[in-house]
Amino acid sequence: MTTCETAAYLKGIDRVLILTHARPDGDTVGSAAALCQALRDLGKQAYMLPNPEITATYAPYAAPYWAPDGWKPEHVVAVDVADKKLLPGNAAPYAAAIDLAIDHHGSHRFFAPNVCLDAEAAAAGEVVYDIIRDLTTLTPAIALPLYVAIATDTGCFVYANTTDRTHRIAAELLSVLDGAKVASVNKALFRTKSRARLAMESRMVADMEVYDDGRIVVMKIPLSLRTEMHAAEADIEELSSLAALVEGSDCGITLRQLKEDTVKISVRSGSRIDASAVCARLGGGGHKGAAGATVEGSMDEAKVAVLRAVAEVTEER
Amino acid sequence: MTTCETAAYLKGIDRVLILTHARPDGDTVGSAAALCQALRDLGKQAYMLPNPEITATYAPYAAPYWAPDGWKPEHVVAVDVADKKLLPGNAAPYAAAIDLAIDHHGSHRFFAPNVCLDAEAAAAGEVVYDIIRDLTTLTPAIALPLYVAIATDTGCFVYANTTDRTHRIAAELLSVLDGAKVASVNKALFRTKSRARLAMESRMVADMEVYDDGRIVVMKIPLSLRTEMHAAEADIEELSSLAALVEGSDCGITLRQLKEDTVKISVRSGSRIDASAVCARLGGGGHKGAAGATVEGSMDEAKVAVLRAVAEVTEER
Repeated sequence: MTTCETAAYLKGIDRVLILTHARPDGDTVGSAAALCQALRDLGKQAYMLPNPEITATYAPYAAPYWAPDGWKPEHVVAVDVADKKLLPGNAAPYAAAIDLAIDHHGSHRFFAPNVCLDAEAAAAGEVVYDIIRDLTTLTPAIALPLYVAIATDTGCFVYANTTDRTHRIAAELLSVLDGAKVASVNKALFRTKSRARLAMESRMVADMEVYDDGRIVVMKIPLSLRTEMHAAEADIEELSSLAALVEGSDCGITLRQLKEDTVKISVRSGSRIDASAVCARLGGGGHKGAAGATVEGSMDEAKVAVLRAVAEVTEER
Repeated sequence: MTTCETAAYLKGIDRVLILTHARPDGDTVGSAAALCQALRDLGKQAYMLPNPEITATYAPYAAPYWAPDGWKPEHVVAVDVADKKLLPGNAAPYAAAIDLAIDHHGSHRFFAPNVCLDAEAAAAGEVVYDIIRDLTTLTPAIALPLYVAIATDTGCFVYANTTDRTHRIAAELLSVLDGAKVASVNKALFRTKSRARLAMESRMVADMEVYDDGRIVVMKIPLSLRTEMHAAEADIEELSSLAALVEGSDCGITLRQLKEDTVKISVRSGSRIDASAVCARLGGGGHKGAAGATVEGSMDEAKVAVLRAVAEVTEER
């Protein structure tokens, strides 16, 4: 479906429940909140399914739209969800009833009868922006979460997915927003680090491992580090971008121990290595430049597994 | 002068030498390079005065435009220079002959007979963009240094000076640029840190001092740290933004020891404290949110001086 057709479809339905993905980021939350507000502006009932994994960073954008207990939707829309298995646990009762999926992942699994997919979009927020422009007037209540969506998925317009379209949309959003408000959002999202986070980063830098003449950097977040630094979930968000910062490297790997025998692997790569191909070998997926997988085993076992996957993917070329 | 009038003025002159400021950043270098290229596209002779303090980060944008030894200009233009005393030493022979100043600093000192000043612009690059649009066609050779100028002064669209106009100009620039090229510029400028720099940041975090219930953070770069980490000038660029990152603080102060008895003070502040007022008390200046001063004395003396200045400025309110 085009964004035009999606807007027409949305105009024809009511009592809409919007689903976000597990480990929610600014794109899924901001896109869902903006869409929810736009539907309400059209006089419809619309809510977001409360996401149990929401962090303090994004809760302010989502909480006003949480569906009350027992509210029954007629239609279900998933936003920024590439695969049904990426939904949070409490979405299970709705997973088979999703009418529409709005997404920007090239790896989208087409689990809904109606799909509005634009894999060229830097963020689901860009797709939702186009839909909303066909639905209703752009207001600050819509523009702010959309800004959060787009800014989050582009690292504030710095990642390679940022295009002229991204900046053009940002200009439209900022034109209806208070500059001081946007500045405070940017400050909170991109220019603030807790002392716990700064201390964790410090340690990750001190303990980093370097392979392949410096082209591959591995950073580790063992359970013990998080405990020691009294770090909350929000302190750990986006920590996986740190490994990709190191000069001379084009493959930053972060190993985060979720449980004693479970490790979340994040891979951020340049054009030489396809991160999604690496993570696909480990049962995960994502984008070419940023992907992830969760594996069983110790931190050392995860490290060997991901380095082997990188070697295999680079040999194939 | 408006940007229109400035374009008309530039059309009427030839043999133009463009001056950048001391400790050149992406804005002064990128704006000057773009203007130089635009004048050449009009068939004029134009050069930039070689800036002896250029770092490896920005040299690629400037070096192709350096004036050859002995080249004699007929006209001199200063870009992003708020005050003649901010010119590098080798600009002295031209300082009295500046015909036109193009700038965006509210603190501009009107040292030239013709001044094109827009203190609302996030970067001199925005002003130069408007001028160039009245001069010639936007080409990649012009758009790339302008992108560097604007991205640098806005921290890649994250600082409070970023407006809808900033994004609109960025969209125009990206529309003529190769996306992969912009991505590699962003990666180099904003997503790469040398190991020396990461190690310095680690130490600055470990040694930071916190005042006023955490609202003021002081970080230090003693001469010894730089020596120990074998840090080049490019490793130190923008290190002063680190202190402003700490959660709960709205005033980040960085003390950098330039010589045994000389300290460069950088202040980054939120709306509560006017950084330019603080630095004015120490003989410096800048913007409300980011300012600097250079003082004589030890690191401890500099720290006391700047904390006293902050106290005085906040008491006045």
